[in-house]
Amino acid sequence: MAPVGPRSGDAIFSSIDRVNAELFTLTYGAIVRQLLTDLEDVDEVNKQLDQMGYNIGIRLIDEFLAKSGVSRCVDFKETAEMIAKVGFKMFLGVTASVSSWDADGTCCSIILEDNPLVDFVELPDTCQGLYYCNILSGVIRGALEMVSMKTEVT
Amino acid sequence: MAPVGPRSGDAIFSSIDRVNAELFTLTYGAIVRQLLTDLEDVDEVNKQLDQMGYNIGIRLIDEFLAKSGVSRCVDFKETAEMIAKVGFKMFLGVTASVSSWDADGTCCSIILEDNPLVDFVELPDTCQGLYYCNILSGVIRGALEMVSMKTEVT
Repeated sequence: MAPVGPRSGDAIFSSIDRVNAELFTLTYGAIVRQLLTDLEDVDEVNKQLDQMGYNIGIRLIDEFLAKSGVSRCVDFKETAEMIAKVGFKMFLGVTASVSSWDADGTCCSIILEDNPLVDFVELPDTCQGLYYCNILSGVIRGALEMVSMKTEVT
Repeated sequence: MAPVGPRSGDAIFSSIDRVNAELFTLTYGAIVRQLLTDLEDVDEVNKQLDQMGYNIGIRLIDEFLAKSGVSRCVDFKETAEMIAKVGFKMFLGVTASVSSWDADGTCCSIILEDNPLVDFVELPDTCQGLYYCNILSGVIRGALEMVSMKTEVT
């Protein structure tokens, strides 16, 4: 992993404005519930969560670049590590791990061990197929697009 | 104001899990935008935000009671102060002030000087009549209902 500039994810996280994680979790839950009620179709909800995430990501990247002091990543591997170790820490207060790289280094999994979005969440059977946290991949997609990196969620 | 128990809003706020305020602000913005698109009517959006807030409030009160150590308020005046000084601090990291009490002490205003929900928000003219932060009054209404206090937003 390349130098992260002067500040680690921890240092950044402790220095910025924050709100209570439970309020955030419950607010996110309220969004998903609202979308399920309004759209009545889990595929549509997945799509909408991704789109909302994208709209957030294209703005959140500014905060990331301004506060993190990171410089340009040399490759996609470094980018993925930066998202997992600095990005997640900075915004959600947790770190993720990167795994399952394919042979040509263009596809990987980012695994969250501890995901504040799913605290206290129980999904009814009617929500089969819902990607509850789909907003997160949308955020990443939007943020990366602003630094000229086209990605897809698979 | 009655004793707040062993912990101030500041102490509680610094000891609990938190997420980045900008992420929260942008996520809230995404909700409002989504509702405006789906419902196409600001009155309906106001109503929905209030309802979402209510659903959050009836759960958030548990966290408030568990973490704050506050005991039962003696009257509505004390309750309002507790919301403004401890509740807002604990969840949003800001404090509010209480003013404009009516003669019989049943109605007041809670004023937020610094409201993280409205950072970077610009509303187009088509949003006239939108109570952008209506979720907050819903949260308060829901939380108070769980401690057997019926309130209305005017």
